[in-house]
Amino acid sequence: MPNSAEGEHRKQMSHVESTTTDRLEEILSSADNAAAELRRKNRTTLAGYLTTVADALDATADVLVPIGQRETNLPEGRLRGELKRTTFQLRLFAETVLDGRYLDARIDHADPEWPMGAPRPDLRRTHVPLGPVAVFSASNFPFAFSVAGGDTASALAGGNPVIVKAHSGHLELSRETARVVTEALASVDAPKGTFSVVFGTDVGRALVQDRRIKAVGFTGSIAGGRALFDLAQARPDPIPFYGELGSNNPVFVTKAADAARGDAIAQEFIASFTLGAGQFCTKPGTILVPQGSRIHAALSAAKLPDGVALLNERIRDGYIQALRDLQANGAEPLNAGLDPYGNLPSPTLSIVSAAEVLANPENLLQETFGPASLVVEYDDEQQLVKLASVFEGQLTASIQAESNDDVTDLIDVLVTKTGRLLWNQWPTGVSVTYAQQHGGPYPASTASGSTSVGTAAISRFLRPIAFQGFPEKLLPAELRDNTVDPVFRLVDGK
Amino acid sequence: MPNSAEGEHRKQMSHVESTTTDRLEEILSSADNAAAELRRKNRTTLAGYLTTVADALDATADVLVPIGQRETNLPEGRLRGELKRTTFQLRLFAETVLDGRYLDARIDHADPEWPMGAPRPDLRRTHVPLGPVAVFSASNFPFAFSVAGGDTASALAGGNPVIVKAHSGHLELSRETARVVTEALASVDAPKGTFSVVFGTDVGRALVQDRRIKAVGFTGSIAGGRALFDLAQARPDPIPFYGELGSNNPVFVTKAADAARGDAIAQEFIASFTLGAGQFCTKPGTILVPQGSRIHAALSAAKLPDGVALLNERIRDGYIQALRDLQANGAEPLNAGLDPYGNLPSPTLSIVSAAEVLANPENLLQETFGPASLVVEYDDEQQLVKLASVFEGQLTASIQAESNDDVTDLIDVLVTKTGRLLWNQWPTGVSVTYAQQHGGPYPASTASGSTSVGTAAISRFLRPIAFQGFPEKLLPAELRDNTVDPVFRLVDGK
Repeated sequence: MPNSAEGEHRKQMSHVESTTTDRLEEILSSADNAAAELRRKNRTTLAGYLTTVADALDATADVLVPIGQRETNLPEGRLRGELKRTTFQLRLFAETVLDGRYLDARIDHADPEWPMGAPRPDLRRTHVPLGPVAVFSASNFPFAFSVAGGDTASALAGGNPVIVKAHSGHLELSRETARVVTEALASVDAPKGTFSVVFGTDVGRALVQDRRIKAVGFTGSIAGGRALFDLAQARPDPIPFYGELGSNNPVFVTKAADAARGDAIAQEFIASFTLGAGQFCTKPGTILVPQGSRIHAALSAAKLPDGVALLNERIRDGYIQALRDLQANGAEPLNAGLDPYGNLPSPTLSIVSAAEVLANPENLLQETFGPASLVVEYDDEQQLVKLASVFEGQLTASIQAESNDDVTDLIDVLVTKTGRLLWNQWPTGVSVTYAQQHGGPYPASTASGSTSVGTAAISRFLRPIAFQGFPEKLLPAELRDNTVDPVFRLVDGK
Repeated sequence: MPNSAEGEHRKQMSHVESTTTDRLEEILSSADNAAAELRRKNRTTLAGYLTTVADALDATADVLVPIGQRETNLPEGRLRGELKRTTFQLRLFAETVLDGRYLDARIDHADPEWPMGAPRPDLRRTHVPLGPVAVFSASNFPFAFSVAGGDTASALAGGNPVIVKAHSGHLELSRETARVVTEALASVDAPKGTFSVVFGTDVGRALVQDRRIKAVGFTGSIAGGRALFDLAQARPDPIPFYGELGSNNPVFVTKAADAARGDAIAQEFIASFTLGAGQFCTKPGTILVPQGSRIHAALSAAKLPDGVALLNERIRDGYIQALRDLQANGAEPLNAGLDPYGNLPSPTLSIVSAAEVLANPENLLQETFGPASLVVEYDDEQQLVKLASVFEGQLTASIQAESNDDVTDLIDVLVTKTGRLLWNQWPTGVSVTYAQQHGGPYPASTASGSTSVGTAAISRFLRPIAFQGFPEKLLPAELRDNTVDPVFRLVDGK
C-alpha cells in the first residue's frame, strides 16, 4: 500500500513542470507592476481580496482536499480541518487590515517648544508595503503553511504581491490552490500579478536573488532555509528573510508534576508527539523527567499508536536517518511499535540521561521530524535550569509543574530560548490569534523579532515611513487630521 | 591651524589603547551576566537608569565638550546643543519605557468557540530584551550617535546591556563619556556589565561574532557597515544588524516652486548642505531643478560659506576623493569657494544634466560626505518621476512644490525609496520624537523595518514571546489580568 501510494504520488508530481526563465520574468515583472497598483488600494479593498480568496477556497474544498490526500498521505479530516483554519486565517487578516492598528500610525504636531533644543516639525509616521514577497511553502501543512497559508495571507494583507514557490511535496495541490486564488483575485479586479505560483528549486533561488523581490517568507528545514537566507543576505541589497526553520520543543516536567499527574502527562505527551505522525514544527521532541518517574513507567508500558505513512519518501528517509543518529549518540530504545524503520514508521521513544545530554547537546537535541521523541532523565530538579540552557532557539518550550513548584529560574532561562512558553499544555496545535507568537531565536526563526502565525505576522511585510510637513491632502488617509479612516493613532505621544 | 589641530588630535587618540582579548572576555562575560539581571528589572528601574545617565552627562558638559572640540573640530555651541539633544533623548526613552506601549502587550483569553476550528487557549504576548547589544558609534555626532547616543539609549531602555565600540575619531571623548555613564549606572546599582566601551577595529569584529552578542547597532559608512553586517549574518546564529549606512537625500523642485520661491529655496539649500560642513547623514546631496531655473542662477551667484576643518583627516581625504570622482563622471563645477580641495575644504556645487544622471546613476548619486552637493537640471517635470526611480534606498527625500502641483506620481515612487519624505522642508536636523523615522531601504538601512531615531527605535532590541496557559503569578506584570502595571493591552483583539 505505501508503495502504490508513492507511485501515485510520483505520478502526480510529474504533472507540474518547473517554471521557465521566460515565464519567471513575466511573473516578476507583473508582480512589480502590481506592487505599484496595490500601494494605492485602500484597506477595505485589500480586506476584500482576502475574504474573496477565503470564500473561493472554502467553495473548492471538495476539489482540493482529495488532491491533498493523494499527494501528502494526510487523511481527509485533517485536511478539511486545515483548510478551514486557512480560510479563517485569511479572514482574520482581513479583520486586522480593517482595524488598522497594525499601521502603528503616529502624529506629532509641530511644537516650537519641543525640549530637544530645536523646534519639532510636523511628523507623521505610518507603514507601507515592501513590494513583491517570495513565499516558500512547507510540506507538512499543504494548506495552512502553503500556497494560501499564513505567509501569503499576511503579505497580501500588507498590500504586497506574492509569488509562492510551491513545495515539491504537493505540486498539483499547489497549482490548483493557486488557480483558485488567482481566479478569486481576478473576480474582484485585483491587479494582475498580485499573486503567482512558481515551481522548481532553481527558480526559488532565482526568486530570492531578484532585485524586484523585497522580502521572503519561508517555512522548512534548517539546511534549506539557511541556504536561502544566505542568498538573501548576500544580495547587493539584502532583504528581510523570515524563515521558520527548526525546533525541538522541549517539555520540562517537575518531580511534583510527575508524582501528581505522571500517567496523564505520559498519555498527553504520546498524543502530542504522534499527532500528524510527528510532522509538526511544534512536536515535542524531548521530555525531561525525574529519574524513576511515573512518566517513564507509563511510557515504557504504553501501547503507542500504529505507524502511518509520512508525507513523502524524502521525509521518511530523513526521519529514519535522524532516528539512527540519535541512537548512534547513545539514546537507548524505550518503546517502539512493530516497525520503527519501516515504510509506515511506528512511533518511537528513546531515552538518555541528563548527563549525556549535557555532554552532547548538539547531537541529542536535534529536531527529528516524524513520530519520535527523546526522554531525558534527570537526578536533581535543579538540573532542569542547566539543561534548559543547552538548547538552541526554540519555537516552543513547555513546563509541566504544580502550583507550588519554584520554577522561576527555569522560566528565566526559557524566556531567552523560545518564542512561546506553555504551562501544563502541549505545543502542537498553533492557534491563529491576536497574541500568538510563532518564532524564536535562531534556528527557530531567522528573524526572532517576528512571528509567522497570528495577526502580528503582517508587520513582517511593512516598512515605516514618516511624512514631514506634508499638506493634509497628500497624506495617507490614516495620517490626516480630518480623516475618514479612523484608526488608532498615537498623537503627540498620547 | 588645521595641521596643529590634527597633531593635537593624533596625540589625544594615542592615549587610548585597543581593548585586550582578556579584557574583552571580561566585558562580554559581565554583559552576559548583566543581561540575566536586567531581565528581572521592572520598567521604573530601567527608566531610572536612563534619567540618571542623562543627569550625569548634563552635569559633566564642561568636561566633555572641550574634549569633543579638541578631537572633532566641531565648535562648542554645536557640541553643547548635541549633548542637550543626547540627554533629552535618554529622558524621552525613559518616558517611553514608563508608558509601556512599546511592549505591544496582547491578551487572548481562552475561547472554546474560536472559529478557527479548535478552541483558543489563553495566550498572552509581550516583548523581552534580546541580551547584550554591540553599538558602533559614528564620527559625526560624537554625542548623539556615539557612546550615549540613540542606539545605546534605546538598547538600555529595552533592558539590554550595551557594549559600545568607540569611534576612532573621538577616542578620549568616548572613554570619558563611558566613564560618566558607567559611574552613573553604578550609583543606582545597575548590574555590573550593563554598560562598557571597547576600542579597536579588530575588537569590533570580534564583538559582532561573539555568541553572547545578540544584536548590533551601527552608524557609519556603507563599506564599514556592510562588512560588519556580513559578519553578523554569517554567524552560526545570525543576529539582527541595525546599520544606518549611506544616503544621498535628494531634493526634487518643481517648476512652479522654482518660479515662486527660487531664491529662497537656493538660500535654504545652501544652509542645509553646508550645515556642520555637510557631515550629516541627511545632508541634501542632490537637488533636481528645472533647466534655466532661478535656483541655478541664485546658486551660481551665491557666496558660499567659508570652508571649515572636517571631522578628521580620513573624512577629509574621503570627501575630496568623492568630489573628484563626481567630476570625473562629468559633473561640472557650478560654484565653489577659494579652496575646495584644501585642508579646510570650501563648499562646492557641481552640476549635471538629468540625462547624464539617468545614464550613470551609480556614480553620480553616491553619497559625498562633506560640504558638496550636486545640481541636476531637468527639461520636463515628468522626468522627476524617472529620476526618482534611479535612486537607491534613502534616509530622506524632499519635495519643493506649490500646492497646485500634481506630484502624486513622484510621491508614489519616493514612498518606495525613503524612510522620511519632506514637503518644503530640509532634511538636516533629525528631530527626536514619537513619529520620527530614520532608516529606509538599503543602503540607507540594513533593516528597513526599523528606525534608529525616535521612540520606535526601542523595538529593535526586543523580541516577542507568548505565554500559553500561564498562572497569573508567573506572568510578566503587564500580562496579568489584575495588574499593578497598567499599560495599554490589546485584549481579545480589542
